[in-house]
Amino acid sequence: MGNLTEGKEPRVVIIGGGFGGLWAARTLADQPVNVVLIDRNNYHTFLALLYQVAAAELTAEDIAYPVRSIFIKTSNIDFVLAHARWIDLQNHLIETDGETISYDYLIMASGSVTATFDVPGVEEHAYFLKTLEEAVTLKNHIICCFEAAEREADEKIRKSLLTFVIVGGGATGVEYAGALTELIHGPLLKDYPGVDFSEARIILLEAASQLVSAMPQNVCDYTARQLREMGVDVRLQAKVAEVFPDKVVLKDMDDIKTNTVVWTAGVKGEGIADASNIQVTPDGRVQVNKNLQINNYQNIYVIGDLASISEGQRVLPMVAQVAIQSGITAAHNILRQVAGSTPQAFVYKDRGSMITIGRKAAGVAIGSRTFTGFFAWMLWLVIHLFNLIGFRNRVMVLINWAWDYFLYERAVRYVFPSNAPSEAQCSSCIRGVMKKSDYSEKNKII
Amino acid sequence: MGNLTEGKEPRVVIIGGGFGGLWAARTLADQPVNVVLIDRNNYHTFLALLYQVAAAELTAEDIAYPVRSIFIKTSNIDFVLAHARWIDLQNHLIETDGETISYDYLIMASGSVTATFDVPGVEEHAYFLKTLEEAVTLKNHIICCFEAAEREADEKIRKSLLTFVIVGGGATGVEYAGALTELIHGPLLKDYPGVDFSEARIILLEAASQLVSAMPQNVCDYTARQLREMGVDVRLQAKVAEVFPDKVVLKDMDDIKTNTVVWTAGVKGEGIADASNIQVTPDGRVQVNKNLQINNYQNIYVIGDLASISEGQRVLPMVAQVAIQSGITAAHNILRQVAGSTPQAFVYKDRGSMITIGRKAAGVAIGSRTFTGFFAWMLWLVIHLFNLIGFRNRVMVLINWAWDYFLYERAVRYVFPSNAPSEAQCSSCIRGVMKKSDYSEKNKII
Repeated sequence: MGNLTEGKEPRVVIIGGGFGGLWAARTLADQPVNVVLIDRNNYHTFLALLYQVAAAELTAEDIAYPVRSIFIKTSNIDFVLAHARWIDLQNHLIETDGETISYDYLIMASGSVTATFDVPGVEEHAYFLKTLEEAVTLKNHIICCFEAAEREADEKIRKSLLTFVIVGGGATGVEYAGALTELIHGPLLKDYPGVDFSEARIILLEAASQLVSAMPQNVCDYTARQLREMGVDVRLQAKVAEVFPDKVVLKDMDDIKTNTVVWTAGVKGEGIADASNIQVTPDGRVQVNKNLQINNYQNIYVIGDLASISEGQRVLPMVAQVAIQSGITAAHNILRQVAGSTPQAFVYKDRGSMITIGRKAAGVAIGSRTFTGFFAWMLWLVIHLFNLIGFRNRVMVLINWAWDYFLYERAVRYVFPSNAPSEAQCSSCIRGVMKKSDYSEKNKII
Repeated sequence: MGNLTEGKEPRVVIIGGGFGGLWAARTLADQPVNVVLIDRNNYHTFLALLYQVAAAELTAEDIAYPVRSIFIKTSNIDFVLAHARWIDLQNHLIETDGETISYDYLIMASGSVTATFDVPGVEEHAYFLKTLEEAVTLKNHIICCFEAAEREADEKIRKSLLTFVIVGGGATGVEYAGALTELIHGPLLKDYPGVDFSEARIILLEAASQLVSAMPQNVCDYTARQLREMGVDVRLQAKVAEVFPDKVVLKDMDDIKTNTVVWTAGVKGEGIADASNIQVTPDGRVQVNKNLQINNYQNIYVIGDLASISEGQRVLPMVAQVAIQSGITAAHNILRQVAGSTPQAFVYKDRGSMITIGRKAAGVAIGSRTFTGFFAWMLWLVIHLFNLIGFRNRVMVLINWAWDYFLYERAVRYVFPSNAPSEAQCSSCIRGVMKKSDYSEKNKII
């Protein structure tokens, strides 16, 4: 068991250092338990701003914070850098790609991963936007497309290089469509005098009849209107049949020539529950009881995106607020159990939701009230800034944003790290041959 | 020829966007020539601070600046992202991994690469510190060593994980030894309560009888004394016979058990001259005439690290100042040739040299004067800060440094991007099996 603290106090293992796992650990800090937090990254990612990394607006480091730093003054929390693979429920053991770790109590908080719904070609050819690696890979690819387009004499190939298709009109798809538009028609416009920007297209495909359908109707309408005003080609009721390296085919048989399909159409629960023979819903989540425990295992809690938490008729959405609040409740319940008391039911407090579409444009819903436009954008900015863990990150993000806002400049448009397959960065683009798999070989998507 | 400007004016191609190439291009801005700048990265790297990236003190983005941004308002400079492979001297063509580019005048500025001197095992097992990718790979590896050491029960393996051997007592080796010591005994000491830091060793091996031998004697002595005071095990006249994944063997038959050998022992000219059958010196550089041209080709200039420039008895050192000044002279000489005049001889102005050893410690030599200690360190800081291209980078570097200086914190100790071979970052370290080749597969060293 390496150097993990062995004490009389029960050991609580938390799998996952996302919003849920981190807030559970914070709740357990300096309490009479030994905590082991497992994550396969040594940093927490502020996923709400991931799309800005993919739009060259923030650096990867801006939205990451080292887990060990967070708990530097907390003696009862150990961190283990490992990938938890499956749980031996009978023997209370977690098998990782490194050592095996035992638990008295377990909080499963490994979150969600991209769901492709088995649409052919998505896994192989579409870009994802769910991890820091994926965001950086996508950003590098976008810039490579412009490098290639500037050197490309063939109009068809050039237009394909300059067509960017985003699949999924949820928060991630909408926010990325807005940010990408501002990247392209702002800093890139200045960087590539040899590119005809009237050839550049951003297309947002949504299978349903409206965007961000979890938001109130007026916010949905505002979002679509705003994106269209910015020049995004928003196509509703558009379903993807198949993705190829050089095109995406829609179910109505239309096809769009493009080298860039960004897939934000769905997520599902991370695989550890399924791998451990814990029953999961069709979208890979674990049905928990009102206390957030799983059936038959009073010492195992599931929180955040991995949990399917029912509240009356609805299942709570996969958002940061649910993760944070369920993480805190699970931790409190374990402390109650340790003290000989009984767990309490989880009560979710909806603090509202928000979506940002671009420069000065956002939609916010709090209770029955909604706001759109500049005020909503300011609200969005302030809330996200203060929720970013770590003062330093706050300062850096503010500088990057201010830079961007006042100078219409993107500070971080480097193709780095090189993730093209051959020697020169982006040389594969220059030859007009771009496949996601080429990047993946070197910058493996985890 | 893609979209390169085709005009009546002669085309000057510059290979390499380092200090030399960049200053040559700046000199040619808005002059009666068409300039094509080729680089395999879309950013310029401020190499003088590379060791700070490898010591988790600055982010990669802090010391990089997009080339297109530099020349955004200059209409006679085109940028091409490509790797120049060889030059067809007869037909005035440059073969790249993408298109072929013709030139009327050529400035070769592709710099230098790491020289292993064919010491067995160096290429396979030692870490290099010459590119941004290499610096990030090394930084991630260092942090992984500590993650692994904290979980490792076997004392021998643990000590090997915590032994860091730097080969080469030149500027890079000395500066990295100092920065690494401060990283380990500062932020990492706080991050890894489970590690016994008395087991951590940093060993600096130098084949000659003193460090930074190009500096005045008192600076050499000060450097060795300062490093030893910081706890670095400085070994002079220590020659490496072979590097293995788990040890380095010295020529006197001693061997040091370690998973980390950082090779800063030598550089040589980049390979394009050799590949083009241009005669090179034993260290791969091109002997130029007094005007910086190569024999028999009045239209080809070589500058910076790739050039072997004689000044009386000595050959000018491979430093930024030589690159910048020779780049400017080569550009002026081409403008003179274009105007029908003759090139002028290059005269190097030595502006002094400096070395930083760590927090508040540096050595500076200007003319016959030398400074050491805190004042020298302040001088070093101010000069490097003002030489960093781009105001934004200056602000960011200042914030990172100030953070580090006042809070004894390292802001950027993420293992990112993941460059371990298996799923969990650093899982290979956790199993005590670390080979440079494992990283290289995914984060290929260019």
